[in-house]
Amino acid sequence: MNPKIGWIGTGVMGGACASRLLAAGCEVAVFTRSREKAAPLLEQGAVWADSPRAVAERSDVVFSCVGYPRDVRAIFFGANGVLSAWATNAAETPRKIFVDMTTSSPELAVEIADAAESAGFDALDAPVSGGDVGARNGTLSIMVGGSKTAFERLTPIFASLGTNVRRQGGPGAGQRTKTTNQILIAGNMIGVCEALLYAYRAGLDLENVLASVSSGAAGSWSLSNLAPRILQGNFAPGFYVEHFVKDLGIALDDAERLRLSLPGVALARQLYLALIAQGGGRRGTQALIQALATLSNVDAFGVSSR
Amino acid sequence: MNPKIGWIGTGVMGGACASRLLAAGCEVAVFTRSREKAAPLLEQGAVWADSPRAVAERSDVVFSCVGYPRDVRAIFFGANGVLSAWATNAAETPRKIFVDMTTSSPELAVEIADAAESAGFDALDAPVSGGDVGARNGTLSIMVGGSKTAFERLTPIFASLGTNVRRQGGPGAGQRTKTTNQILIAGNMIGVCEALLYAYRAGLDLENVLASVSSGAAGSWSLSNLAPRILQGNFAPGFYVEHFVKDLGIALDDAERLRLSLPGVALARQLYLALIAQGGGRRGTQALIQALATLSNVDAFGVSSR
Repeated sequence: MNPKIGWIGTGVMGGACASRLLAAGCEVAVFTRSREKAAPLLEQGAVWADSPRAVAERSDVVFSCVGYPRDVRAIFFGANGVLSAWATNAAETPRKIFVDMTTSSPELAVEIADAAESAGFDALDAPVSGGDVGARNGTLSIMVGGSKTAFERLTPIFASLGTNVRRQGGPGAGQRTKTTNQILIAGNMIGVCEALLYAYRAGLDLENVLASVSSGAAGSWSLSNLAPRILQGNFAPGFYVEHFVKDLGIALDDAERLRLSLPGVALARQLYLALIAQGGGRRGTQALIQALATLSNVDAFGVSSR
Repeated sequence: MNPKIGWIGTGVMGGACASRLLAAGCEVAVFTRSREKAAPLLEQGAVWADSPRAVAERSDVVFSCVGYPRDVRAIFFGANGVLSAWATNAAETPRKIFVDMTTSSPELAVEIADAAESAGFDALDAPVSGGDVGARNGTLSIMVGGSKTAFERLTPIFASLGTNVRRQGGPGAGQRTKTTNQILIAGNMIGVCEALLYAYRAGLDLENVLASVSSGAAGSWSLSNLAPRILQGNFAPGFYVEHFVKDLGIALDDAERLRLSLPGVALARQLYLALIAQGGGRRGTQALIQALATLSNVDAFGVSSR
């Protein structure tokens, strides 16, 4: 018998994942802050529930995929949260499982897993990478922290959502793997944007430069996928600047807890904060080049010099 | 008739390139500061010449591939330099060509091209990427600045050395394209090394983390090729730290000339300078993680905490 699924948060990522589970034949109860955002899922056969608690009450496995750690905290620990529904089911077998797919803090993941364990259910942290395309196609990387038993029980469900699904360790290890991923991207985005700005200012033909440098030691996913968007003046979000700033804040907080100085992440976050200050929070991460162009008063990439 | 080739500088890159031209049937005259380093080329049929000037006197096309801009300056402008040999041949047809493959400064490339033009010959800047393997296999990327006519005349020779050969514009454009390449690598190396250090300090299984993050949006050549060396404790040079510091210095100097602030490059160069201060100048660029580990007193990656 398939477990009954609950789904909280139906943004670009969560909505696409829930849709895949419905298509795979799962029963799905759904809650999200703005009910109209759940409409496509309800049409696809999902059942509406009025709160995270209501979702949990009718589900064996509850997924959340929301924006910020504070949202995750409310969904889990809030007055109408998942914990309030499951705290009294301590004896239930098989154990219920809460899975947070939000990119959130490792510390919160540990706090949730501890509370779940005390109440007799399991909690996994399972952030993803692969973007909206990966979510729609079921080709996400899913980085999981938490109980091995719970992870293995969810193997068939994870297999509907991702092609690179790995348990990275105990509670928080999924979040820390995702944080590692974001640190990699932060450094690389600085390189991509400073390099393109330099090449532009040097008067080079940027297409031709990319043809020289993209396939060698300077090559990267960001260079191949985001640099062409920059050249087209396309700053639409694949991934929002404001979410990336949140992720880099998580990285710096966790690094501080681990007594680790990460000067590159700190610089990247400051530059992205400048971009938010300049009105770029809802653009894609490739808009970093605009913050750098503004810094040097360069009249290009959608920025006007003064 | 094949042009007579002169070759100055027979290090890892220059030696491998000159060897390919000999294997392709070219006549090659060679000079390098330590004659014993030219021995393999002399065995292969190259002829020794006692100075850059002597190389130029017997050659139609002279290549240089040395360490630093100051070496290029001496080879070209010095008392026994290439210019001293060719300055009096102004009427010669076809025009002689000087090609500098060193990663050097765009400003010097322009200065050399101007002097060559005044003397009636051509000069190209043609730095490369692709490392020792690319040089041996003739699969380099070659980024060329200078006269289109001279570039086209050298097409068959460049084809023996590289598979991605592009003229990027006038004098200095090759150097500036290579600088763009190095800026990309600088940002990415910060990301790779901070990410691995964080993952290590967080107690994750680094191999398993790489399996989660390498194929997605965080992926890059450096992550796929250098992170595994870091995990093996292999800090042998694919590319020397001290050469990278030179390249990033060229980037910052040229950016300053262009009135451009590149905070990521500045940070990367300071961290690499710290690595040199710690004795790491002759290690590979992946040793950046040692500078970061030292910074946070982390006892790993070949660094001891105090």
